[in-house]
Amino acid sequence: MMTTTREACERLDLNDPLAGLRELFVLPAGVIYLDGNSLGALPRDAAARVRRVVEDEWGHGLIRSWNTAGWIGLPQRVGDKIARLVGAGAGELVVADATSVNLFKVLNVALDLTRMAGSERNMILTERNNFPTDLYIAESIARARGVELRRVNADAIPAQLDRRVAVLMLTHVNYRDGRTHDMAAINRAAHAAGALVVWDLSHSAGAVPVDLNGSGNEDEAADFAVGCGYKYLNGGPGAPAFVWAHPRHTATMDALHLRQPLSGWLGHAAPFDFAPDYRPANGIARFMCGTAPIVSLAALECGVDTLLAAEPLGGIAALRAKSLALTELFIALVDARCDGRGLVLQTPREQRLRGSQVSYAHAEGAYAIMQALIARGVIGDFRAPDILRFGVAPLYTRFTDIWDAVENLRQVLDNGEWRDARFGRRAAVT
Amino acid sequence: MMTTTREACERLDLNDPLAGLRELFVLPAGVIYLDGNSLGALPRDAAARVRRVVEDEWGHGLIRSWNTAGWIGLPQRVGDKIARLVGAGAGELVVADATSVNLFKVLNVALDLTRMAGSERNMILTERNNFPTDLYIAESIARARGVELRRVNADAIPAQLDRRVAVLMLTHVNYRDGRTHDMAAINRAAHAAGALVVWDLSHSAGAVPVDLNGSGNEDEAADFAVGCGYKYLNGGPGAPAFVWAHPRHTATMDALHLRQPLSGWLGHAAPFDFAPDYRPANGIARFMCGTAPIVSLAALECGVDTLLAAEPLGGIAALRAKSLALTELFIALVDARCDGRGLVLQTPREQRLRGSQVSYAHAEGAYAIMQALIARGVIGDFRAPDILRFGVAPLYTRFTDIWDAVENLRQVLDNGEWRDARFGRRAAVT
Repeated sequence: MMTTTREACERLDLNDPLAGLRELFVLPAGVIYLDGNSLGALPRDAAARVRRVVEDEWGHGLIRSWNTAGWIGLPQRVGDKIARLVGAGAGELVVADATSVNLFKVLNVALDLTRMAGSERNMILTERNNFPTDLYIAESIARARGVELRRVNADAIPAQLDRRVAVLMLTHVNYRDGRTHDMAAINRAAHAAGALVVWDLSHSAGAVPVDLNGSGNEDEAADFAVGCGYKYLNGGPGAPAFVWAHPRHTATMDALHLRQPLSGWLGHAAPFDFAPDYRPANGIARFMCGTAPIVSLAALECGVDTLLAAEPLGGIAALRAKSLALTELFIALVDARCDGRGLVLQTPREQRLRGSQVSYAHAEGAYAIMQALIARGVIGDFRAPDILRFGVAPLYTRFTDIWDAVENLRQVLDNGEWRDARFGRRAAVT
Repeated sequence: MMTTTREACERLDLNDPLAGLRELFVLPAGVIYLDGNSLGALPRDAAARVRRVVEDEWGHGLIRSWNTAGWIGLPQRVGDKIARLVGAGAGELVVADATSVNLFKVLNVALDLTRMAGSERNMILTERNNFPTDLYIAESIARARGVELRRVNADAIPAQLDRRVAVLMLTHVNYRDGRTHDMAAINRAAHAAGALVVWDLSHSAGAVPVDLNGSGNEDEAADFAVGCGYKYLNGGPGAPAFVWAHPRHTATMDALHLRQPLSGWLGHAAPFDFAPDYRPANGIARFMCGTAPIVSLAALECGVDTLLAAEPLGGIAALRAKSLALTELFIALVDARCDGRGLVLQTPREQRLRGSQVSYAHAEGAYAIMQALIARGVIGDFRAPDILRFGVAPLYTRFTDIWDAVENLRQVLDNGEWRDARFGRRAAVT
């Protein structure tokens, strides 16, 4: 049933129209990097760009660079670029703060809008297996505002969309198993039930097609979204995050002068007037708070630019096709070559339900197996309690990388090297 | 009355025991930089450090660098260093997010602690001329929680400390006029009145002595503090900020498992357990939220290190003495050489009331005068509506810089070049 060989993978790489994009990255020799879903690889341009920001713009331009180097407009400029990757329009998305902080803003605003519409809905509905920080933030908001946070299994969500639900909060691609929600269908169902939908795109943006504006269909459009800059957007460790709101909501906020709770000065309509009272900027700019970390933000722009470089080659659709081919290959190779070795596939076999990663559970040794792989230069990651994650970044992952990764996995399982004591100790970050 | 000459200033530089610290910075030729209170200068080590973080740690270490390069501990490590500059202990202060975001956390916690102590105090008291973002954040919290935000003149604060005040929120050094509060006296008065005190150290940390722990005297100690990384700490544009809580408050929070509202995963007791429920980390670590921007944070560490390099030379006390000598000189030179030209000193003449800047109002032409100075390479800044600010960074500002700055100021005023049309147009950031 499985006849693929390494030679066949080499041919796939040779015929891959996106193969040249790998040259946009610096990748260390001897490493197969399958953790771009946790920290994207270094864009080749980022080192020079960061050097310029530090040495020229900061060192020589000093404070003048806020104007002369355009620092002040960077959150919007990079935001407009990210917008192109997630089906949003220019001026609708801005880079700011961390994902968790942005989630705090939009969840509160979604609840405010619900309440202002005269609704007594008092529940945030979410998925039990959502990324923990999303649950933690929602938990705090629910406590502070006296609303209920209900966590249910993913497949129970449609049935739970009743008249108590104010906000449905979901992550588009699940961080553990890589399962993807049908965003348009869920938005439609939620809107039909009178709820707003907040999406976390951390494991989607840059790897999976997202259509926040529902191609103009408001029923299928999302209401709010946040996402991470350092995964598939390749923005570097702790790169700032992004936040989006549907234009109909920012229009309402404009009309009513609504603020988001973290009403810092850079979300003010005229921050450099230093007025004593807060007056929110129009549009998405009101979701900014303090000063963005410019050095990290400049690196993020380089990361986003690597994705825009794929636009002439088919953009996100082409990246998605390659990503699915890569994950399909991974699953097929494990099926064929690692059978009976305790790996249990967590990621859906159905392509439309799959993000850009493949996850396996291994009851006995998930952590140690991943450590053994990393020692061999095959870098994925472990997620407690028993998950091995292999992320696929179609910009720089090759078909031969998948072959080699699975071959290393097979060897680690077969020769039992993962049982070596040195692989058993958990590091600070796993 | 004023006999100082440029030659006398040269002698002051020659005899300045701190003069060598200027070598820790890259400063452009032909520039007199008096805006370190808005963006600190580039530390010489920062360029190489940032290059290492980007090219080696991110590029080659990739995800492994969270452990191998110590990224995961950086917020605490840099926090411990900042603590030494503000009279706090190791483990009490952490780098996180932006100043405004941190203020949101601590104000909410201060109100929570007040309420949990059974108090019905329902007011945040602050100074009318506080930095606007502090007012904006407090305004949002006051609305959301139904407490009153009262803004009074600085000198009215003691009389306003009645039994309605839950939290007194102040900035230690005012951003406009550079006036400094007596932190110990205010803490004592607020505590005697039953209120908690939240301090913003943005214009203090690194330039003005701060004793958050009140040298062990709880009455005189602060309760919470936040501050900025990119001013006197030289952390680079938009460097992350810091947050501190008095150990007695974190002890209470530990005992009662209290959270701050932005309960993101990196403030969790065990973030990499990915547990479904939030359990705050003990101590100050609970004030973290999302992932810190590591590249910007690494630059901040270099900035903080420039201040620690002054420790063998007398540390903050020695820097403070030089700062006062510099601002004293600035004021004396303007008195003597720019008299009758419309400049009105805003900064207190009394040294104990003065931060590390000198501000003047000029009714007609503050913005244009500053633009004319900047065109001459003397960089201070303008604050609406009519303030010229000259910040003094004792690590790298020389006595001759002060002489030359005032000489340029005198010329700009005397020859009327500030009336040139090209200096009249306001830039995005002023």
